[in-house]
Amino acid sequence: MTMYEMGVVYRNIPRTEPAVVDRLAAFGTSTVHESMGRVGLMKPMMRPIYGGAQIAGTAVTVLMQPGDNWMLHVAAEQVRPGDVVVAAVTAECTDGFFGELLATSFKARGARALVIDAGCRDVKALAAMQFPVWSRAISARGTVKATLGSVNIPVVCAGALVHPGDVIVADDDGVVCVPRGNAAAALEAAAKREANENDKRAKLASGVLGLDMYRMREPLAAAGLRYVD
Amino acid sequence: MTMYEMGVVYRNIPRTEPAVVDRLAAFGTSTVHESMGRVGLMKPMMRPIYGGAQIAGTAVTVLMQPGDNWMLHVAAEQVRPGDVVVAAVTAECTDGFFGELLATSFKARGARALVIDAGCRDVKALAAMQFPVWSRAISARGTVKATLGSVNIPVVCAGALVHPGDVIVADDDGVVCVPRGNAAAALEAAAKREANENDKRAKLASGVLGLDMYRMREPLAAAGLRYVD
Amino acid sequence: MTMYEMGVVYRNIPRTEPAVVDRLAAFGTSTVHESMGRVGLMKPMMRPIYGGAQIAGTAVTVLMQPGDNWMLHVAAEQVRPGDVVVAAVTAECTDGFFGELLATSFKARGARALVIDAGCRDVKALAAMQFPVWSRAISARGTVKATLGSVNIPVVCAGALVHPGDVIVADDDGVVCVPRGNAAAALEAAAKREANENDKRAKLASGVLGLDMYRMREPLAAAGLRYVD
Amino acid sequence: MTMYEMGVVYRNIPRTEPAVVDRLAAFGTSTVHESMGRVGLMKPMMRPIYGGAQIAGTAVTVLMQPGDNWMLHVAAEQVRPGDVVVAAVTAECTDGFFGELLATSFKARGARALVIDAGCRDVKALAAMQFPVWSRAISARGTVKATLGSVNIPVVCAGALVHPGDVIVADDDGVVCVPRGNAAAALEAAAKREANENDKRAKLASGVLGLDMYRMREPLAAAGLRYVD
Amino acid sequence: MTMYEMGVVYRNIPRTEPAVVDRLAAFGTSTVHESMGRVGLMKPMMRPIYGGAQIAGTAVTVLMQPGDNWMLHVAAEQVRPGDVVVAAVTAECTDGFFGELLATSFKARGARALVIDAGCRDVKALAAMQFPVWSRAISARGTVKATLGSVNIPVVCAGALVHPGDVIVADDDGVVCVPRGNAAAALEAAAKREANENDKRAKLASGVLGLDMYRMREPLAAAGLRYVD
Amino acid sequence: MTMYEMGVVYRNIPRTEPAVVDRLAAFGTSTVHESMGRVGLMKPMMRPIYGGAQIAGTAVTVLMQPGDNWMLHVAAEQVRPGDVVVAAVTAECTDGFFGELLATSFKARGARALVIDAGCRDVKALAAMQFPVWSRAISARGTVKATLGSVNIPVVCAGALVHPGDVIVADDDGVVCVPRGNAAAALEAAAKREANENDKRAKLASGVLGLDMYRMREPLAAAGLRYVD
Repeated sequence: MTMYEMGVVYRNIPRTEPAVVDRLAAFGTSTVHESMGRVGLMKPMMRPIYGGAQIAGTAVTVLMQPGDNWMLHVAAEQVRPGDVVVAAVTAECTDGFFGELLATSFKARGARALVIDAGCRDVKALAAMQFPVWSRAISARGTVKATLGSVNIPVVCAGALVHPGDVIVADDDGVVCVPRGNAAAALEAAAKREANENDKRAKLASGVLGLDMYRMREPLAAAGLRYVD
Repeated sequence: MTMYEMGVVYRNIPRTEPAVVDRLAAFGTSTVHESMGRVGLMKPMMRPIYGGAQIAGTAVTVLMQPGDNWMLHVAAEQVRPGDVVVAAVTAECTDGFFGELLATSFKARGARALVIDAGCRDVKALAAMQFPVWSRAISARGTVKATLGSVNIPVVCAGALVHPGDVIVADDDGVVCVPRGNAAAALEAAAKREANENDKRAKLASGVLGLDMYRMREPLAAAGLRYVD
Repeated sequence: MTMYEMGVVYRNIPRTEPAVVDRLAAFGTSTVHESMGRVGLMKPMMRPIYGGAQIAGTAVTVLMQPGDNWMLHVAAEQVRPGDVVVAAVTAECTDGFFGELLATSFKARGARALVIDAGCRDVKALAAMQFPVWSRAISARGTVKATLGSVNIPVVCAGALVHPGDVIVADDDGVVCVPRGNAAAALEAAAKREANENDKRAKLASGVLGLDMYRMREPLAAAGLRYVD
Repeated sequence: MTMYEMGVVYRNIPRTEPAVVDRLAAFGTSTVHESMGRVGLMKPMMRPIYGGAQIAGTAVTVLMQPGDNWMLHVAAEQVRPGDVVVAAVTAECTDGFFGELLATSFKARGARALVIDAGCRDVKALAAMQFPVWSRAISARGTVKATLGSVNIPVVCAGALVHPGDVIVADDDGVVCVPRGNAAAALEAAAKREANENDKRAKLASGVLGLDMYRMREPLAAAGLRYVD
Repeated sequence: MTMYEMGVVYRNIPRTEPAVVDRLAAFGTSTVHESMGRVGLMKPMMRPIYGGAQIAGTAVTVLMQPGDNWMLHVAAEQVRPGDVVVAAVTAECTDGFFGELLATSFKARGARALVIDAGCRDVKALAAMQFPVWSRAISARGTVKATLGSVNIPVVCAGALVHPGDVIVADDDGVVCVPRGNAAAALEAAAKREANENDKRAKLASGVLGLDMYRMREPLAAAGLRYVD
Repeated sequence: MTMYEMGVVYRNIPRTEPAVVDRLAAFGTSTVHESMGRVGLMKPMMRPIYGGAQIAGTAVTVLMQPGDNWMLHVAAEQVRPGDVVVAAVTAECTDGFFGELLATSFKARGARALVIDAGCRDVKALAAMQFPVWSRAISARGTVKATLGSVNIPVVCAGALVHPGDVIVADDDGVVCVPRGNAAAALEAAAKREANENDKRAKLASGVLGLDMYRMREPLAAAGLRYVD
């Protein structure tokens, strides 16, 4: 299973354990990204086609040529309940690779979402059926089915490297990839972080300043901050 | 009536038959674009100012200079019920050429929407009055009324050539222009396509794979697709 | 108090009178921008993280280094009820400088909004708590707290110069800065403009053309506009 | 010969008279664009792959699908000495559609240049052989030869409408299309403009101010310009 | 003299001392920007129209409306030998505001360069006459002369605030503005920095590592850097 | 050696055999990219800071935080003659991470070039010393030395995955990464392709059409191409 291998479908991929995936979903992108040490985030141009969705799933990866979505049909067969399809393209492209019919098929197979470094269409219908998509563009322009790509090889999607079976977490803040080997640790770190935040939120809401709560006054003074009245 | 003719208003333009226009509206941008053979789509930067609107209308075209919306007032008089105003600018510009007052006037004249390769403003008010606009930008920056342009000449809007009287179809997926001479054929093709899709949707929802429904397994194998377990 | 002075916090800044600020809020960005003579608008890439908010407030300014939000915590202490924090960064950056915890603190201090020439995160939570933000990006990528910037110095934010105490007006059309010294005059001009518009709206809704209402036919003819039947 | 007609090659196209074309070349893009009344300019993202070339020629137009340069080979046969190939693509694409081999063929056929709303490659070799190209991108990424487009239909290239046989003028300032029917008039206007400019240049070089030479002081004062010492 | 004041020309502006300006030119943009503490740099989209020029001069500022270069003619009269004209526009615009004729006039008045947050044209002629321009675009599209702006008011140009009389330093690395009050200090800091660099350059050329020369090994180890063989 | 591991330097990396690397350099980016099956190309925004350089080398990879070039100094020690440093940043950034001093050091260590998904400065000096750099931006804005990154871990640079020891080929057409394991095969394919091209070039130069040389007339007719006189 190597980067850039075209015309191949890997069928049996190791997937991150479902329990870990589902608990990561609850934390959301920003918290998980922090917990991982601020790596694995896709570029901020990746936006949800409708607001409010927050999901996590195991990656089924697809690599396609620009303007050709044939491999999304091939990928559908590899989807298992709890997966998120992650689609990369070999060159920049905003065409609408994905619409209502493919979404119907993906949903029937148990897919939770699509993350695609290209365009999406039928967004009104997708919102109505509540199948979330994160994409770099929305475009009515369809694609052909003529050229092979691959399924379940490592791909670079919107600047992030994704291996099949990695965890994809996505919400209104964007999309982050948690490598399978790091998922348990990321979960633990996220849980700690979150616990910590409830406390902080209450204090800040009561008017306590971050300057005091985080004990920043001394380091700020040490760094030379001056106050002028 | 030629491209680039400035300072002229064509009053009597042939318009696509209303019945054809209205039936195209129901199919939406993506289906219509497919039915036309994937041509006539405006660039995906053209976005609706609010979600959910889906319209079609006959084009009243306007060509303006950057930062000058005088001709939109001239265009208002040429609007008939069922029209969509298509506004192009001679250079890239994001100024807010259009707002609530013009929308009130356009609506009173029977316009269904504005498609503008520039900016729009008063978007909250426009949403409240349900006058849909597709634009490349939202900007509070207004414009002057100082320079002539033209009304009802052919224009290039967001990369698509639009003649007065052509059909404009617009929804959440973008904006497509159907030349008047192609409208009946596009409608027929769209109807066929749609009929076809209902069937497919049901099959895919039941778990049938596109691979089988579209008989893709053989051509994929012929193209050399390999499966690895 | 000079541009570019780093490591300093000005505590006592003159603020525009609250009554003026609140009345400007009601007019919204487009009207206020017109009333000022079309200056002071931030670039249209500045977008609200959720639709419908319309605010005005007195600017507390912050200048930060890319990827470092330390000074937002320092700024929180300087916030008084009715303020809007205006955050500029010394180089282009889309990181998520601001999220739910800081919003909780800002809100507790009385801040009405944040305007930031960088990224924002936790947008779902911010919408839930109704703390409006105008930003150039949404990104889960967090920031460090390591380098000094300044609070309440003049800053260039999204192309507009903002002095502490200026009025910031923001809504779905964008963000405009009204210099403190111009605020009363801008308010007066906006009020005149608005009064004028109610009349116009009614006439246009009744089908009167702008061509007639604004007496444009003569100047258009003088400029050489031709009508062709 | 209609916009968007795919799979057709028009062989006998009317071309602008060579003498007119060659004289337009000498004036360059900026002067010709002014002479036409500031229309017909391609977007400024269209840049020469090397500096200093200044050409004009008659357009042989090509419409292609993204990532597919098959029709450039078809177009080569239609090229006559003095032509410029103008290549449009049905969607945004930066792939390298054109390189040294095609340039060798185009040059052998008498083509003067390529203008392409996509990418170009082998730019070092193209500079060495002095075959000028104006493109929106440079990219090593090649294309396939699989899908039909058309040759010598009207196309929209980088925002400008080009009919086969129109004049294309290109230099370091960009690319302008002069419709065949306007070419003689544009030439005459350019000649007048240029004659006029030699005089002006000498005066300005001697220190005369444009304010005086163009008699601007009065209209500036009338517009309200104030001088403050 | 306030930001945004339209329709006014300030004639007598204080200028930074010529000796300081000329010495800053020799250091170039990167060194001067460092010496100022990394502030005052225009956005990197500002590029020279030809390579190799390195200049400094005192700013004569101009604020214009998009597509209107009238005020550049007004500015010409205010230019004194050693000045650099800094032109800002009230909205984003790529039109070619400046070409050979204006350059002839500017040069005759003693201007050293133009820095413009818009487009430039006649770039081949400008290179031939060696009049350097830094701009955000190159475009053949000309402008009108219809609307007032101002000369010698503070302007925001490509993200940097420039006051008349400030020092502008520009070369292949970009454009930086040194406020008049900081110029002498910036010069001193630049001189120290440069002296220091000659030494370093020789050491690094001989193969000494920055790790050793800058004594970085200890802080890197302290920060936790691990080496793996 | 894993993606995203921060704070670690891998010292002993396997490098592609020098003979293979040097022969790939001679073919250039476009030919090598084709030979690899059109994968591994960095995005076309990666441009050389001066024209004409054509190099290949073995990758020493660096991952940095935005605005922080500390790890380039660490990387210098790991450079061996024939290497190319490939620098990625964890978020989009255009700062000038690299200038003359670092280039002096890199050159002294035997580096052939830098490829950086960020900005570069001192470009005039770098051209004078003939140290080629491919970057996404040119910017005078310098960086700090405060945060750890890593050296010789896999990185995503301008959309391409690069492992330490891979071959980097770069010229005026862009930058391509050849995985170490594919280098020998890519070389062989490139050689075959090139041999083939000399023949073709001569034929095309003599006026033979690609239509005939590539035997395209039959497949074009089969695809339905029509000629109209």
